[in-house]
Amino acid sequence: MENPLENLKKYSVVLASGSPRRRELLAMMGVEFDVRSVDVDETYPEHLAPEDVAPYLSELKARHYRDNLMQSGQLVITADTVVIAQGRVLGKPVSKEDAVKMLRMLSGSTHQVVTGVSVCADLREISTISVSTQVTFASLTDSEIDYYVERYRPMDKAGAYGIQEWIGCIGISSIQGSFYNVMGLPTHRLYQLLAQKV
Amino acid sequence: MENPLENLKKYSVVLASGSPRRRELLAMMGVEFDVRSVDVDETYPEHLAPEDVAPYLSELKARHYRDNLMQSGQLVITADTVVIAQGRVLGKPVSKEDAVKMLRMLSGSTHQVVTGVSVCADLREISTISVSTQVTFASLTDSEIDYYVERYRPMDKAGAYGIQEWIGCIGISSIQGSFYNVMGLPTHRLYQLLAQKV
Repeated sequence: MENPLENLKKYSVVLASGSPRRRELLAMMGVEFDVRSVDVDETYPEHLAPEDVAPYLSELKARHYRDNLMQSGQLVITADTVVIAQGRVLGKPVSKEDAVKMLRMLSGSTHQVVTGVSVCADLREISTISVSTQVTFASLTDSEIDYYVERYRPMDKAGAYGIQEWIGCIGISSIQGSFYNVMGLPTHRLYQLLAQKV
Repeated sequence: MENPLENLKKYSVVLASGSPRRRELLAMMGVEFDVRSVDVDETYPEHLAPEDVAPYLSELKARHYRDNLMQSGQLVITADTVVIAQGRVLGKPVSKEDAVKMLRMLSGSTHQVVTGVSVCADLREISTISVSTQVTFASLTDSEIDYYVERYRPMDKAGAYGIQEWIGCIGISSIQGSFYNVMGLPTHRLYQLLAQKV
C-alpha cells in the first residue's frame, strides 16, 4: 500500500521553518523532508489587513528561498502563523510581562489564528494558501496565566500560547476550523496543495 | 508558581482507562496519576439515545471502580468516547473490512464525537459530564482509506480513526468544539470538574 503522496518523492522536499511543531506535523503527514532555516526580515507593509499578514510573510520566505537557496529538484514549504485579536496582529511576546498582557487579552474571548503556507517546486511559481481558525478561550484566572508563563515561557509563540501545551488543554473551550492550523500548519489544505504538485 | 490544581494532591488520582491518548492528555493537564484497568461489560440499553451512550458507559465504569476497587483517599477518573454518524453509534471496528466501511461512511460528511467523563472522589457520589465535538471529513479516496487502514490498523479506535494520526491530519477539514475531546478527554471541562473537587 503506497502513501497517496508517493509521487512527491521525485522532489527533495525542504521545510524552511524553524518550528518544531511544523516539523512534527509534516512528519505526521507522511512526508519525508529536510529542514533548512530561512533568515528574512519579517516586516510587512503597515496598510496590510491583519488576515493578509501570514500569507504575505510565508510568500516572502518562499521567494527568499527560491531566489537565493533553491536547487533544482527541490520542493520548498514555508509558513507563517499569526494571532489576530481585537483587530490587531499579535506576534511573539517580547517579555514575560508582554506574554501575560497578551493572555489577558485572549482570556474569555474568541480570536483568530491565520496560517499562510507557500509551496514552490523546482524554481517554478510559488503557490500560497491561507487558512483561518477561530479559537475560544475560557476566562483565565491571573494565577493560571502566571503559572503558564512562568512554567512554559511561551516567548517563541505568536499570541503567547501553544494549543498543544497546558494552557491549550485547560483553557481553550472550543475551536472552529482546523486544529493543526493553530499548531502551525493547515495539514489538510497543505496535503491538497502538495497533491496538485505531483 | 503552583499548579492551580495543586490541592488535587491530597488525593491519590487514578485514571481507570486503557487508552494511551487519555494518559497523555491527563499528563498534559499537569495531573499526577496512576493507571488502572477497569473491566466491565460495555453494553448499554437499546433504547438509549446515541448522545447518552458515552456518559452512560463512563458512569458504569466509575460505579464499578467505586463499588469494587476504590480505596479511601483516591479520586478516580473514567471516560468513554463514541462516534455518532447518521444517527448510529459507531464502536471499534471488528475487522479491516469493517474499518473501511466506517471510514467510507464518515468521508465527505460531518459526524459527532461524544466523550463522557466521570469523577468520583473518596467513595462519594459520582459526577459525570458529557461533551460533544463536530468533526468534518473531506471526501476520502479509496486509496487513502485503504492506505490508512492497512498502515495504522485503527481497530482500537471508535469510528476507526485517530484524529492525531495520518488520516486526521490529511482528511479532517474542520472541527467545531474541543479537539482533545475527540482524542478521548474534554480537557477543559475535566479541569473545571477537578477544580470543584479540591
